[in-house]
Amino acid sequence: MNAKAKTSSNATQSKWVGYRENLKVLDCTIRDGGLMNNSRFTDEEVKEVYSTLTKANVDYMEIGYKNSEKIFSTKDYGPWRFSKDEDISRIIDDLKTENSPKIAVMADAEKSDMNDVLPCDKSPIDLIRVATYIHQIPLALEMLKDAQDKGYETALNLMAISTVRERELDEALELLCAAKPNTVYLVDSFGSLYGEQISYLLRKYHRYTKAEGIELGIHAHNNMQLAFSNTIEAILRGATMLDATIAGLGRGAGNCQLELLLGFLHNPKYKIRPVLECVQDTIEPMREALGWGFDYPYMISGIMNSHPKSAIAQCEGENRKKIVEFYDSMTAQ
Amino acid sequence: MNAKAKTSSNATQSKWVGYRENLKVLDCTIRDGGLMNNSRFTDEEVKEVYSTLTKANVDYMEIGYKNSEKIFSTKDYGPWRFSKDEDISRIIDDLKTENSPKIAVMADAEKSDMNDVLPCDKSPIDLIRVATYIHQIPLALEMLKDAQDKGYETALNLMAISTVRERELDEALELLCAAKPNTVYLVDSFGSLYGEQISYLLRKYHRYTKAEGIELGIHAHNNMQLAFSNTIEAILRGATMLDATIAGLGRGAGNCQLELLLGFLHNPKYKIRPVLECVQDTIEPMREALGWGFDYPYMISGIMNSHPKSAIAQCEGENRKKIVEFYDSMTAQ
Repeated sequence: MNAKAKTSSNATQSKWVGYRENLKVLDCTIRDGGLMNNSRFTDEEVKEVYSTLTKANVDYMEIGYKNSEKIFSTKDYGPWRFSKDEDISRIIDDLKTENSPKIAVMADAEKSDMNDVLPCDKSPIDLIRVATYIHQIPLALEMLKDAQDKGYETALNLMAISTVRERELDEALELLCAAKPNTVYLVDSFGSLYGEQISYLLRKYHRYTKAEGIELGIHAHNNMQLAFSNTIEAILRGATMLDATIAGLGRGAGNCQLELLLGFLHNPKYKIRPVLECVQDTIEPMREALGWGFDYPYMISGIMNSHPKSAIAQCEGENRKKIVEFYDSMTAQ
Repeated sequence: MNAKAKTSSNATQSKWVGYRENLKVLDCTIRDGGLMNNSRFTDEEVKEVYSTLTKANVDYMEIGYKNSEKIFSTKDYGPWRFSKDEDISRIIDDLKTENSPKIAVMADAEKSDMNDVLPCDKSPIDLIRVATYIHQIPLALEMLKDAQDKGYETALNLMAISTVRERELDEALELLCAAKPNTVYLVDSFGSLYGEQISYLLRKYHRYTKAEGIELGIHAHNNMQLAFSNTIEAILRGATMLDATIAGLGRGAGNCQLELLLGFLHNPKYKIRPVLECVQDTIEPMREALGWGFDYPYMISGIMNSHPKSAIAQCEGENRKKIVEFYDSMTAQ
């Protein structure tokens, strides 16, 4: 690493030959991709992703949801909906090196039971990301406190903010930041935000996070082919925790592609070739069955700032090609 | 149209509820897409695109190249490589309305013969876009002068600028702007520019164009999934002529998608539904045969700032899936 190539984290001018050392990448391929197959990845697939991220020197791997078996049936959902410690250990114990990513899980408000979470020093999990809608924040803050008390690194992911009004968002950010998670995420759940809106919102987020020393994160979706560019925009506005997935695997139109992001970051520690191997041999072969990625129904739901569930339903089978029918159904609502 | 919703063209702050009336959209589906099928579109396909753009109130349709039969064989290439006046008239005469787009053609330096171009008042063509590499500028300026003298609206598209050095680019812009085309285009031929670079370059372009009252244009490619976001970035930096294609049809990874762009612009005159009909019924059915669109070889050539021809060759047939092999061949050069 060439120290001269590093750009100060406080630099505001555009620079693109050096790199910013303070940026961290979180891969959520298995977690977000699990929304397309009920978290039924094979052990071999999860191991392949873990090995890939180790070789690529990616900082975090979100291995799944930490959801409750009281709410999700183990008959209907695979192990990565629950991410039990013993399942995680089965994947990583034989593969772990000093370059391996930290392990993250996502605990959703009202879908998770923090009684399932052991103290951090007894668990392979490093980071708990609490995901919450605006109306669940008091519960999310209790979950956060529990994770903090158990010694975990923590993040709060406030979802679906493109439909949250300004007044509520300000109040939410004040509450979330007072609870001092390590990171607060801007989450574009509907893939409906343009770069200018990402920029505006992150300036707002930053007003709340900076006083507490909380990091900003970005989680983008690709409904309008903006997941990657919005992640770049977020970097320029101070985000330092960057979500991405291999081949963009994730809900609906998918996520910011890890391979694009690593190409942009220019940090010599990140290696793109192992990611391309995983794209080619492990992830792309799943595309036909899982069906994620940019398509017109997702574009339409993004433009219309709607939850992707209607578009996901449209994209199952041959209806995927009935673009005008879907547009008419959405505009008739 | 609601006058209150219009945003001043000089506004520098971000606004996204209103719209900018001075932005114009140029569809180059048939011209750029012709690079994927030797310009062999059927009359029905070209008529369908023209009708669609009429219904959508798109401002310009670039119907093809104005290349010379002395250089391109009419056996190997279809009519839209030559865009003869009689071929254009055969398409548009029965379909033309007051809302129809103006007709543009692209004349390439060293591939076109301006003797093929009649005076504007005897031709269905409205706009001639002269495309030039940096080493062809004296010839391009002669072609421009010819088109201006014949009464055409004109544009100059300086290609492949991601490999042009600063000193030459400045000199080129000075020469191009002195010749006073209506528009000078920033062309990201290799799909290798990030938004910050688009922004930097357009500020440079603007320093040369503003004194002459020349408009700025943007022509983006989607190798890194940035064609749409770079077009937005260009709008924010003063570009007013915006290239796009239906379903992104165009060379290699394709172009900024017209349907995404119209969704963003918010100008009530533009209609997205007819474009979606054309996507569904005319353009997407060509995808399997023509094979344009984002894929990993194009991404790799974009990241590496290389001409897309190697990636296009890789993407013919089953080699498309050999991502790592392509990456290794590119990094071994």
